[in-house]
Amino acid sequence: MRLEAVRLEIPEGCNIIVGISHFIKSVEDLYEALVNSVPGIKFGIAFCEASGPCLVRREGTDEELVRVATENALKIAAGHVFVILLRDAYPINVLNAIKQVPEVCTILCATANPVKAVVFEDEDGNRALLGVIDGFRTKGVEGPEHVRERKEFLRKIGYKLAP
Amino acid sequence: MRLEAVRLEIPEGCNIIVGISHFIKSVEDLYEALVNSVPGIKFGIAFCEASGPCLVRREGTDEELVRVATENALKIAAGHVFVILLRDAYPINVLNAIKQVPEVCTILCATANPVKAVVFEDEDGNRALLGVIDGFRTKGVEGPEHVRERKEFLRKIGYKLAP
Amino acid sequence: MRLEAVRLEIPEGCNIIVGISHFIKSVEDLYEALVNSVPGIKFGIAFCEASGPCLVRREGTDEELVRVATENALKIAAGHVFVILLRDAYPINVLNAIKQVPEVCTILCATANPVKAVVFEDEDGNRALLGVIDGFRTKGVEGPEHVRERKEFLRKIGYKLAP
Amino acid sequence: MRLEAVRLEIPEGCNIIVGISHFIKSVEDLYEALVNSVPGIKFGIAFCEASGPCLVRREGTDEELVRVATENALKIAAGHVFVILLRDAYPINVLNAIKQVPEVCTILCATANPVKAVVFEDEDGNRALLGVIDGFRTKGVEGPEHVRERKEFLRKIGYKLAP
Amino acid sequence: MRLEAVRLEIPEGCNIIVGISHFIKSVEDLYEALVNSVPGIKFGIAFCEASGPCLVRREGTDEELVRVATENALKIAAGHVFVILLRDAYPINVLNAIKQVPEVCTILCATANPVKAVVFEDEDGNRALLGVIDGFRTKGVEGPEHVRERKEFLRKIGYKLAP
Amino acid sequence: MRLEAVRLEIPEGCNIIVGISHFIKSVEDLYEALVNSVPGIKFGIAFCEASGPCLVRREGTDEELVRVATENALKIAAGHVFVILLRDAYPINVLNAIKQVPEVCTILCATANPVKAVVFEDEDGNRALLGVIDGFRTKGVEGPEHVRERKEFLRKIGYKLAP
Repeated sequence: MRLEAVRLEIPEGCNIIVGISHFIKSVEDLYEALVNSVPGIKFGIAFCEASGPCLVRREGTDEELVRVATENALKIAAGHVFVILLRDAYPINVLNAIKQVPEVCTILCATANPVKAVVFEDEDGNRALLGVIDGFRTKGVEGPEHVRERKEFLRKIGYKLAP
Repeated sequence: MRLEAVRLEIPEGCNIIVGISHFIKSVEDLYEALVNSVPGIKFGIAFCEASGPCLVRREGTDEELVRVATENALKIAAGHVFVILLRDAYPINVLNAIKQVPEVCTILCATANPVKAVVFEDEDGNRALLGVIDGFRTKGVEGPEHVRERKEFLRKIGYKLAP
Repeated sequence: MRLEAVRLEIPEGCNIIVGISHFIKSVEDLYEALVNSVPGIKFGIAFCEASGPCLVRREGTDEELVRVATENALKIAAGHVFVILLRDAYPINVLNAIKQVPEVCTILCATANPVKAVVFEDEDGNRALLGVIDGFRTKGVEGPEHVRERKEFLRKIGYKLAP
Repeated sequence: MRLEAVRLEIPEGCNIIVGISHFIKSVEDLYEALVNSVPGIKFGIAFCEASGPCLVRREGTDEELVRVATENALKIAAGHVFVILLRDAYPINVLNAIKQVPEVCTILCATANPVKAVVFEDEDGNRALLGVIDGFRTKGVEGPEHVRERKEFLRKIGYKLAP
Repeated sequence: MRLEAVRLEIPEGCNIIVGISHFIKSVEDLYEALVNSVPGIKFGIAFCEASGPCLVRREGTDEELVRVATENALKIAAGHVFVILLRDAYPINVLNAIKQVPEVCTILCATANPVKAVVFEDEDGNRALLGVIDGFRTKGVEGPEHVRERKEFLRKIGYKLAP
Repeated sequence: MRLEAVRLEIPEGCNIIVGISHFIKSVEDLYEALVNSVPGIKFGIAFCEASGPCLVRREGTDEELVRVATENALKIAAGHVFVILLRDAYPINVLNAIKQVPEVCTILCATANPVKAVVFEDEDGNRALLGVIDGFRTKGVEGPEHVRERKEFLRKIGYKLAP
């Protein structure tokens, strides 16, 4: 038995979403959830089949992102894990649609930061994804000036209305 | 402190769902979520109470499945974990209803594959469920012929419409 | 690499919710989700920013709860983790609203029990939250008298209707 | 301009669901929502295309129910209305899945009672579905004995747990 | 056939929610949805049974509100309509929970304004609820000063964060 | 009392969504729901305040669409109705986010077709939106060749995967 932290690959400017689903239909249903969410969305999906041939199943609208999602799935290599790479669209655009896919169990992370997947492996080589190191260790607490900057930033990029 | 992988029991032809909830009302609310989902559904639910008597709380419509869910919950023995066993119904029929139960936090797996729960135990014997080994280690990547088979299979069993 | 269990602080009579989200907008969106849920709700939110200054971002309607949420977030110190402390309101009142926040990935626990966060730390000091020890180890299985008490309790406090 | 009440047809033992959606993809997405909900579910779907050829679009797993849904849609003849007929499954099993279909706007009724659709027609013959007469006019108020019977009935058929 | 507008009663300081559901289980499920939403919530629910005895079915935590909901339901008298009266809680606290009740089809209004229900009645006296007059006719368009007041108001009462 | 059908304006290439909400916070919450859904989304929102000054409240990211939404809201002039105009984004991208806005009651239509709102007006001039004529009267039933074309179209534009 061992625990390891596997570095995932995220192309410049992309976001990664990692979750757990059930059954190979996930790749088609995740594909539809993403295509429904944003016009012209660019993405790749990879899903670790957990029985039979145990292949990485994959779909997408962008060949490079399908390739990167597949490589990340192979690095995790844990049954029923899925990996999504997004370009020119953001997790906030798609997470609620993914949560409602009827096979999806949970989402472990959604991020553009450097990511390591924490994987447990048993004596037979079978693996469980336990969690994700998402970006960097917390360094401190925001003060009043950081609060002001945070609120201004969210209003400047239009996510919140300025009063 | 130790980390262990506990083999869960899944009777032939059944599916298991493992998640985390909050509060003993979960067993009644999960019961209702399942009964609402599929007419005549056969299931067992077990929930690890996390305070007071710390008992496995349980409900269901099938005595054997309640018994198996209870045994699996005892093996995990981590506060606020729930285990559901389903027969003649499938995770896809019930996962979205379970996600909407107001006490449910998350679902860790939904599968008919062999499963091991990865449990962390502290020096007092209290336990956390960290993740699940669901089936087998990934072996490779699907090629064009596997894609075709995958799509045909989903259309043959009626989950997707054939063009 | 190491695994540790960090004791979180929960003031008397409060509940804690721990989850994983994406992006600092979470603190405003979680604030709104909670304010929408219960009139006059008292809470504190803290979110571990995962890039740039890596600060704990925070909001709330109760200064002490914001302070405690912040301290708990600093103890976990893992990117994109959020901690919510509630007083005079209960997880059941807010969990579904939190699940629908468009940045939220998952919820790891919701509880008034003693809690330890299980955290993995890599060689660079970056951290992943893997799970939570919520209360105490399971001690046994409910018998008929416990079932009766459980059902009576839920009906006495009005969560379920008495026949 | 006129207002009319159109009697819909519901085969013995079936339930009808009438709603409003957007775009012909609805028939495939409603098909998938229903197939995901109940194993072996028998249903027919009909959707009134609102532009171009303005045809009733239809799918299903039961030929007679597709035929009846189509006839009902033709009677309503209002753009973007859908009609679903279910056999051996119940609205409670499928309504939440239908509500989450990304094109669905609203559901006007779900019932096994005799139904009339209230339709407004303009001077060009174009039509709007305004509402549904679902069963019969209210006759009175339940007294204590009716409350007891109602609660016993829901517990006897297993939708609620007996204490 | 006739169309009428029926004035509903809303006690001072209360809100009314009117919707369409399916099946008498609605009164218990709406009860639970409301009790789950806000601690100590005061409400009354009335539901127009649409077959058999066609009684108003009702539940609640406040006798006067159950009585008023019942009277409003009798005035509408249309099968499968439900009426909820809330005191010291607000539609925003409960609407999403109501939308997720598995029998609920739709919600027609949620308001503290004077309300008239628009009801269609056929030649047999059976009725359909078509819509609701909620408050007063629109009088104009907001100018810059109204926008400022609107935003300040929402921030003053704490629904949105001030920058 | 009268019933009228009011033609709404939809600029070339845009979609309109009409619904019913509760309370002026809707304009900010709908704004956020739309901004969260699609990067760079162009839209206008107008909401008919139902008490006090009874103004059309409005927000958006595109001035023309805010103006058109406002004019449509003024034509409907019924309390608590909202109108959204979208450009370069589609109802399928935003409907589920709108359904989850905590003040939203229901959505009456989502369409790019010509639309008339069916409005009931009482003797005081107060108004209820009862429904929508969305596009054109149904003309017939699809035959096998139309089914083939429908399926091919959905697969060609990428909403469904080709086998």
